[in-house]
Amino acid sequence: MKTLTVIKIGGNIVDKPEELDLFLEKFVKIDGPKILIHGGGVMATEMSQKLGVETKMHQGRRITDLETLKLVSMVYAGWINKSIVAKLQKIGCNAIGLSGSDADCVPALKRSPVPVDFGYVGDVDPKQINVGFLTSLLGRGITPLFCAITHDRNGSLLNTNADTMASSIAIAMSGDYYTRLIYCFEKQGVLSDHSDADSIIPLITKESYISLKEKGVIKDGMIPKMDNAFYALENGVYEVKIIHASNLGAEKGTVLK
Amino acid sequence: MKTLTVIKIGGNIVDKPEELDLFLEKFVKIDGPKILIHGGGVMATEMSQKLGVETKMHQGRRITDLETLKLVSMVYAGWINKSIVAKLQKIGCNAIGLSGSDADCVPALKRSPVPVDFGYVGDVDPKQINVGFLTSLLGRGITPLFCAITHDRNGSLLNTNADTMASSIAIAMSGDYYTRLIYCFEKQGVLSDHSDADSIIPLITKESYISLKEKGVIKDGMIPKMDNAFYALENGVYEVKIIHASNLGAEKGTVLK
Repeated sequence: MKTLTVIKIGGNIVDKPEELDLFLEKFVKIDGPKILIHGGGVMATEMSQKLGVETKMHQGRRITDLETLKLVSMVYAGWINKSIVAKLQKIGCNAIGLSGSDADCVPALKRSPVPVDFGYVGDVDPKQINVGFLTSLLGRGITPLFCAITHDRNGSLLNTNADTMASSIAIAMSGDYYTRLIYCFEKQGVLSDHSDADSIIPLITKESYISLKEKGVIKDGMIPKMDNAFYALENGVYEVKIIHASNLGAEKGTVLK
Repeated sequence: MKTLTVIKIGGNIVDKPEELDLFLEKFVKIDGPKILIHGGGVMATEMSQKLGVETKMHQGRRITDLETLKLVSMVYAGWINKSIVAKLQKIGCNAIGLSGSDADCVPALKRSPVPVDFGYVGDVDPKQINVGFLTSLLGRGITPLFCAITHDRNGSLLNTNADTMASSIAIAMSGDYYTRLIYCFEKQGVLSDHSDADSIIPLITKESYISLKEKGVIKDGMIPKMDNAFYALENGVYEVKIIHASNLGAEKGTVLK
C-alpha cells in the first residue's frame, strides 16, 4: 500500500501569511499523496464582530446558529480555503478545495440538541466518507484541501471540528493507504512542562497518555485532540504526530503510537 | 458524442430560496451530464455595506480591490456555492462546488490595468480550461457547480464575469460533448418590446442580432450577454438559449443559432 499523509493545520497558522507560505512550501515537498485539513482562525471571530453576529459559546465551544453557519461557511469554505488553493497552485501543487458537502465527501450527523443544542454542528462517521472519490483525486495527482464544513445529506451545511474531520478522513483512508496523521498546532509538541517550550514529550503511548492525564500534564483542550489521535490509531491509522507547523518534515515533535 | 448542458443562473434567483429550490428541482431532471454556474446576487452588496467595504464601479462594472476580492470569495465560493451543493445533494444530485482555482479548472489572466484598472479581475481563455478533470467528474456522475471566482496561477484569486465563465466552460467542453448553453435571467427571453413581458423573440441569428442592436431593441447589459452567446456559438457550442429560470425544461424563451 502507498503511504498517505493527512495533515491538519489550525487557525494560528492560517492567520499568518508568512508562516502559512513557509508551511505550504514544506507541505508540497512531502512525497506521495496527501490531504490537508484547515481550521478557522480569528477571521471568523473578526467577521462576526464586524457583522454584529453574536458569538455564543458553551463551555468553550462555539454554538452555531444559522447566522454563524453562514459566516463560517463564507470564511472557511470561501476565502481561507480558496486562497490556500491559489497559493498551492502557484507552487506546483494541484490542490482542490473541498467542503464535506462537495461530491458528498464527508457527510455528518447533526448533533442531538440534548443535553446542549450546539445548533448546526455535525459529527462525522468515518464509514460514511466517500473514499472512492478521494482515492480517484489522489490517483490523478490532485491534493484535496478540506475546510471543516460538512453537510447532513438533507440540504443543510454543518460546522464540524477540524481535528475530528482530520482524524475521520485519516481513518476512512487507512483501508486503502498506509495512513499517517499529523496535527500541526501552536507548540513544538506535547509538553511535560507548560512553562518550558522545549520539554517536548517525544513519544506517548495509550498507557502513558492515561498516566499523563492523571498527573494533569495533559489537560483542557489537549484532551479532545489526544482522544481524536488515539481513536485514529485504534482504527487503522499507523502513526499520529503532534508538531509545530514550522517543523513539518523535521523530526521534532510528539509521536503517538 | 454525449450532450452536455451548461447552465448559468444569476443573482436574481440565487437570492430567492423558493425560486432557487424550484429551479434546482428542474435542473436535476435534465438528462445527461450538466454543469451549473452561478452568479453573485445582492448578498455581496449587502455584506460590503455591513462590513463598510466601499463598492467601486466604473461604467456599471464593479472594481475588485483586495477587500472586495475577499468578500466575493467568501460570499460566492463560500456560502452561496456550498449551500447550493447541500441543496443539490439533498435532491439526489451529486454536486461538487468549485472555483476556477480548484484542480486548476479555470485559470484566468488578470486584466490589464490600462485603460481602466478593474483590480483582481480575470478573463478566461477557454483553451486553458481543465477539460480532462471536468470530463472525469462528469464520467463519475458528479455535477460541477461553479462560482465565478478564478485564479491567475500565480497565487491570486480573481473575480470573473459569470456569463463569460459559463460561455468559456461551454466552449472548452464542446470538443468532447455536444454542448448547449442556457442563460437563465430575470426575463422570459429576449424581448422585442421592453414594456411587454410576452414579446419574446423566439429565434435570433447573428444577422438578426446585428439588426436588433441597430434598432436599439437589444441594448445595455444585454449586449455583452449576447456577445458571449454568439462567441460560444462560433466556437463549438451548438445552441444557446436565454430563458427565465422558472422555464427550465420548457420551450419558452429565446434560442440563438
